[in-house]
Amino acid sequence: MSQVKGVEWRIKVEDGRWKKAVTSCSMWTLIASFYSKLSKFIKKAWEIGVNDPRKFIHCLKVGIALTSVSLFYYLKPLYDGVGRNAMWAVMTVIVVFEYTAGATIYKSINRICGTTLAGLLAFGVHWVASRAGEQWEPVIVGFSLFLLASAATFSRFIPTIKARFDYGAMIFILTFSLVSVSGYRIDELFAMAQQRISTIIIGTSLCIIVSITIRPVWAGLELYVLVTGNLHKLANSLQGCVDQYFEAQTANEESNKKLMGYKCVLNSKASEDSMANLARWEPAHGNFNFCHPWKQYLKIGATMRRCASCIDALIGCIHSENKTSDNMKKIMSQSSMKVGTNSACVLRELAITIKSMTKSNKLDILVVEMNNSAQELQNLLKSYPDTHNNSNAKMEIPIIEIIQVVTVVSLITEIVARVEDIVKSVEELSNLAKFEPAMFKCDKSKQHSTDNKISPEEQEKDEVAIIKTLQMV
Amino acid sequence: MSQVKGVEWRIKVEDGRWKKAVTSCSMWTLIASFYSKLSKFIKKAWEIGVNDPRKFIHCLKVGIALTSVSLFYYLKPLYDGVGRNAMWAVMTVIVVFEYTAGATIYKSINRICGTTLAGLLAFGVHWVASRAGEQWEPVIVGFSLFLLASAATFSRFIPTIKARFDYGAMIFILTFSLVSVSGYRIDELFAMAQQRISTIIIGTSLCIIVSITIRPVWAGLELYVLVTGNLHKLANSLQGCVDQYFEAQTANEESNKKLMGYKCVLNSKASEDSMANLARWEPAHGNFNFCHPWKQYLKIGATMRRCASCIDALIGCIHSENKTSDNMKKIMSQSSMKVGTNSACVLRELAITIKSMTKSNKLDILVVEMNNSAQELQNLLKSYPDTHNNSNAKMEIPIIEIIQVVTVVSLITEIVARVEDIVKSVEELSNLAKFEPAMFKCDKSKQHSTDNKISPEEQEKDEVAIIKTLQMV
Repeated sequence: MSQVKGVEWRIKVEDGRWKKAVTSCSMWTLIASFYSKLSKFIKKAWEIGVNDPRKFIHCLKVGIALTSVSLFYYLKPLYDGVGRNAMWAVMTVIVVFEYTAGATIYKSINRICGTTLAGLLAFGVHWVASRAGEQWEPVIVGFSLFLLASAATFSRFIPTIKARFDYGAMIFILTFSLVSVSGYRIDELFAMAQQRISTIIIGTSLCIIVSITIRPVWAGLELYVLVTGNLHKLANSLQGCVDQYFEAQTANEESNKKLMGYKCVLNSKASEDSMANLARWEPAHGNFNFCHPWKQYLKIGATMRRCASCIDALIGCIHSENKTSDNMKKIMSQSSMKVGTNSACVLRELAITIKSMTKSNKLDILVVEMNNSAQELQNLLKSYPDTHNNSNAKMEIPIIEIIQVVTVVSLITEIVARVEDIVKSVEELSNLAKFEPAMFKCDKSKQHSTDNKISPEEQEKDEVAIIKTLQMV
Repeated sequence: MSQVKGVEWRIKVEDGRWKKAVTSCSMWTLIASFYSKLSKFIKKAWEIGVNDPRKFIHCLKVGIALTSVSLFYYLKPLYDGVGRNAMWAVMTVIVVFEYTAGATIYKSINRICGTTLAGLLAFGVHWVASRAGEQWEPVIVGFSLFLLASAATFSRFIPTIKARFDYGAMIFILTFSLVSVSGYRIDELFAMAQQRISTIIIGTSLCIIVSITIRPVWAGLELYVLVTGNLHKLANSLQGCVDQYFEAQTANEESNKKLMGYKCVLNSKASEDSMANLARWEPAHGNFNFCHPWKQYLKIGATMRRCASCIDALIGCIHSENKTSDNMKKIMSQSSMKVGTNSACVLRELAITIKSMTKSNKLDILVVEMNNSAQELQNLLKSYPDTHNNSNAKMEIPIIEIIQVVTVVSLITEIVARVEDIVKSVEELSNLAKFEPAMFKCDKSKQHSTDNKISPEEQEKDEVAIIKTLQMV
């Protein structure tokens, strides 16, 4: 018998001959390609973690919380205390533990409230049903289940409830169904409900403690870093595109990346909304007290997006076909770039105001400077043919040469107006959050570094991580 | 003894006298104010349902699914089949049943896959641990729990996994923990796992059946209606703002609402993303087959938002201080409004193309017309001082008078360019989804009305409901 040394697949090609298709080697190619894909995936995943080590830490935190709650099963005395229902504690930890402290607290409170409320109601229904006689019992239980489940489901469509109690409504339905359905069979209903609530309280407390004590990720801080970062991005984009147009800089990769920063601003609405929603559940942390006006950050975000969409239009117009004469551009260049720089300064000062949580004493001056330079630019444009030619020989300007510059200047003026809106919304924030005047800034910052729970170095590390993550998105 | 006729609370005011504070009447005021608040809330909730009756239907569907799954408890033979674990079926229904069919299917598949995978792995670990001897058993189980839970938690940070298997990863951790933790105590592990998986399959199948058969809400259809509706809104905004500027129409509430339509376009990114994500889980429905290119709708959405941000800038410039002379405005008016009308026509034709899922044969002509009118407008602007004055007496134009018109015209040109981008992305969609040429449109539409699972009237009702909901957001 001849030994088989290899397998080959053949395909009959068009002209009738057989062609070798898949040799045994292809098997290895397949495996190799799978392996390369897998290693690429793992590399990408690793990068996600390296860019934001808090994600690794979060995984460890989940592991710690889970292992601690499992102790209820492993340790005999604790097991005897809560019995088989310890399962609910494990489940609670897995379902409730989220990346940010705010989300964990939101889910914990919702779970406890939903469970308690539903448990009490289910008891009531069960009591009424048991009085009504055996024949009516399933009818009453079934009807109440149908009614309450439908009502709770509908409540999740109402925006105010959706924002705060969406998870609670689901848990309400879950608990009510389980208690009323199992109540029909099991007699030890009271003990079960009591155990379930106590295990849930154990699970949620554990989650909240682990989430808050071990390197916490605050949704509020995340929002705050996002908004200040976006202000910087907006400033860079604005200054970058004005400079690129008037100085005709050659665009390199670095400057292009800076220029595109405004796109992050346009796309960050969803993150801002969810973080502001979660931040209000968080206790006082760092420089934020419990009633910090998180909603105001959403208003700031909205004004920033309005400014960003104007920058988008500006960039579009810069790349349009109507090119301006170099002469005209040169004349307008200095004033325009001054407006660009000044408004970028205002945006950066706003970022500093939010970051340091102190009312800036430079801001008013910077805004006045920005407005003055914008007015100057307008005046320069309006007086263009007069001022830049020999006074008497008034030259006629071909309109084609000025279209682009006029548009750019108008849009810059519009951007300045929108930057002022951002200023107003940040000032509102500084009033609502009672920012202190900047006079005591230096002393304060020293004081903070000793008083604060989070050291400035740690906070900075967190911020770098958040920024890195945001850049990846 | 004297009879008590009323109670009153008093406060000592600054000058030392006592003042009546809360009389027994105030109690009623309090209740009345609470009642009025409650009735307002209920009214608002009712309106939400009336505007989109599918929400009421969804609640009924949840009730039906829950009541049917409860039968497993109520009916003795079925109860004997799956026993106490029937609880898992109830739980599955509550957790898995979502508003759209896509979301329900996504959660169902994730739940089944996550449970099965985790169950198998937990068995493996348990088997290894039981071989290692009693001393090592808790160590191996605990360590594997820690490791796998951390890994699965981390996988939820990876974007591709988050988009498709976020829920599955959570269920994986949940099942693995429950099986491995309870496995340490309970011997009937195999029976438990088997029962759990079968109850989950029962629950998910029930959810999918109810969700798909009773007046289904398709995420795909929702996305499609959102995108076509946004195209109409964009068209109305664009035409509205051009008309308002050049015709100096007095703005009434109706026209202002139309004008602000572009804001919905700017804010719909999050909804589009989530719906496109869910739509790919849905089976073929209506005119959409299983591999319908849902992602392309996101591209269309992105190009629409770029156009909308340009409209935002345009509206800003229209309200700026630099007013144009009526004369200049009058001269430009006709051409500008023509561009506005033509590009609105293109946008509406795109909406029709997507809506009817047929390649439009008018579209090319409309795009050419739009571009021609834009070019005309440009030419008119460029030749402005020459053409509109007595040829030889060349008048000098004060630049202040033309700033606004030049900006408006430039922005309109930019908008036209961006509308062309939308056209390109819709054309890509029509190629990817293999839209048929419009020639057979009339016959087709007749055919559809008999062939289709959803009657056109029903679909239209749904669309009206979706649009009403979107308007409320």
